[in-house]
Amino acid sequence: MTKVHNYSAGPCILPQEVLKQASEAVINFNNLNLSILEISHRSKDFIEVMDNAIALVKELLNVPSGYSVLFLQGGASLGFYISAINVMKKDGKGAYLDTGVWSAKAIKEAKRLGSVEVIASSKDKNYNSIPKSFEVPGDADYLHYTSNNTIYGTQFKTVPQSSIPLICDMSSDIFSKEIDVSKYDMIYAGAQKNMGPAGTTLYIVKDELLGKTGRDIPSMLDLQVHIEKESMFNTPPVYPIYVSMLNLQWLKKNGGVKWIEGINNQKAELLYAEIDRNPLFKGIVEKEDRSNMNVTFVLTDESKSEAFDAAWKAANISGIKGHRSAGGYRASMYNALPLESVQALVDVMQAFEKTNG
Amino acid sequence: MTKVHNYSAGPCILPQEVLKQASEAVINFNNLNLSILEISHRSKDFIEVMDNAIALVKELLNVPSGYSVLFLQGGASLGFYISAINVMKKDGKGAYLDTGVWSAKAIKEAKRLGSVEVIASSKDKNYNSIPKSFEVPGDADYLHYTSNNTIYGTQFKTVPQSSIPLICDMSSDIFSKEIDVSKYDMIYAGAQKNMGPAGTTLYIVKDELLGKTGRDIPSMLDLQVHIEKESMFNTPPVYPIYVSMLNLQWLKKNGGVKWIEGINNQKAELLYAEIDRNPLFKGIVEKEDRSNMNVTFVLTDESKSEAFDAAWKAANISGIKGHRSAGGYRASMYNALPLESVQALVDVMQAFEKTNG
Repeated sequence: MTKVHNYSAGPCILPQEVLKQASEAVINFNNLNLSILEISHRSKDFIEVMDNAIALVKELLNVPSGYSVLFLQGGASLGFYISAINVMKKDGKGAYLDTGVWSAKAIKEAKRLGSVEVIASSKDKNYNSIPKSFEVPGDADYLHYTSNNTIYGTQFKTVPQSSIPLICDMSSDIFSKEIDVSKYDMIYAGAQKNMGPAGTTLYIVKDELLGKTGRDIPSMLDLQVHIEKESMFNTPPVYPIYVSMLNLQWLKKNGGVKWIEGINNQKAELLYAEIDRNPLFKGIVEKEDRSNMNVTFVLTDESKSEAFDAAWKAANISGIKGHRSAGGYRASMYNALPLESVQALVDVMQAFEKTNG
Repeated sequence: MTKVHNYSAGPCILPQEVLKQASEAVINFNNLNLSILEISHRSKDFIEVMDNAIALVKELLNVPSGYSVLFLQGGASLGFYISAINVMKKDGKGAYLDTGVWSAKAIKEAKRLGSVEVIASSKDKNYNSIPKSFEVPGDADYLHYTSNNTIYGTQFKTVPQSSIPLICDMSSDIFSKEIDVSKYDMIYAGAQKNMGPAGTTLYIVKDELLGKTGRDIPSMLDLQVHIEKESMFNTPPVYPIYVSMLNLQWLKKNGGVKWIEGINNQKAELLYAEIDRNPLFKGIVEKEDRSNMNVTFVLTDESKSEAFDAAWKAANISGIKGHRSAGGYRASMYNALPLESVQALVDVMQAFEKTNG
């Protein structure tokens, strides 16, 4: 069958060889003659999967000692609340940077627990940029930000300076580029972009951050409980963790985060260059804040949208319609999207210029 | 390869034809030339999966109108808290029946929210039976019980009489026998026994039960939020829901819950008859409370355990070691375990009697 150029915003494209292994394990895992779906999560074979997945996260991101790595459930949506309840003291305060929908949701959940100070926001510019000047309140328990906004297509290029514990929702760009984990006190990320399929959520947390809120925390939301039980407090989402492990193995084998960062840069340069060059298109985000993961753009003449949609669909390109709250187009270029798929989109844009320019 | 008789306590055996379809969809789902793991959860194709899964639950369990069906995350372990926070009023009270580990965990999480009254417990008999005489307090907001205890091997054979809303953790016996949903106000169940693989949790909830607590509930724990968004408030655990749908299709195609109940009864009668007949074994649970899902038993002479373990392992039987907190043996006989696998175990027990009796 013809190859699909899969620009899905998440759940998103995964490497073919990962999918092949993932498919085989549903029939016969580890030559047990049993499916990965029907073995005990406390079996030797699955404990090995969990241990490998955790070890790969630590290795690929150079996680320093003193941090724990957890595979939990609930996505970033539960992470918004979990991050706050585990760190915001009773009568404490959380500081937030607002870069759009995901930050706003994090802020909403944190407000249930106490005081929230939004120290900077790009809302008045329709979130087309990343706020750069802000003062971090020394009396807040933490500073929270979203590293990449999938909807508007913005991305932090530097880590915010913070004198207080730093928490980051890194759902949409973790494993896409090198990071310095030691600058963070907590990172959380839904798996379904660069880590694996939907259904598990990664937490990387500095152990000493926890246990200081004076709050009673429900067991399933308590990161200390999960650390103590090594992500096995209850039945974990076995298959999403297994496929994440396979995908991290793929990343390691090919050269790790530094390797994929190089490719991701190439992909982004190729597409942004075409958007800037081609008079039929324009970007919607300030250049210095453009995301390497989600490239947003519009037609300079919206009346051509029907013709353009037909053109990319004919080229087997899938999933570049913009998010319903942003409109236009969004090319999500996660790790497994090959450079050839970006070239295919650029080719469509160039051909479209010739026939419609 | 030789067939494994998979008695795993959960995640547990799934039908071979379900696994085959589940494996294929990881490579090519719905002939999209894309994996089920790499498509958007908001795509037409996945929305159809979610709709089908919900419709199958409603059909197979005859869910009356006025109830919502949700596929969420977190397992029963998060359900312990979700069920309480959505129903227990501020300064309200929950009533609980205590039948062992899972009930105790539900009680622990509910106590974080308010008053809990344990109205009956079989703890003093090491949970070898189901409490039958209890008075339901009219001033409690709900009565909670666990329909089947996987560890001790006990099961409610009738629905507790209750004048107040009835909530049931049905994780380990839902879809194994016919139930009257109208007797319940909320049912919740981790998928990984008779519904599908680990990673999603089913909620069946009477709409009018909700919205009465006066509590502020975090979005991801608020069943009204999930009902409003039709289980799509955030990215759902796509693959566990898909495989659950396949498994419910399998159940429907073969004759539904009534059909599987007949087979489950046959399996239980066969094994319990052998336990009662064979002088080398004895059951540990009061006969009238024996679970059809998890059959627990011990050797009458524990010194023979090494020889017995060798015998069942040689017959390709897997997973009948008892839970670490109960000891002995536990044969978990979920829907997909065929009668032949139970016969294989009975054959081993009979052969063992001949050589060791």
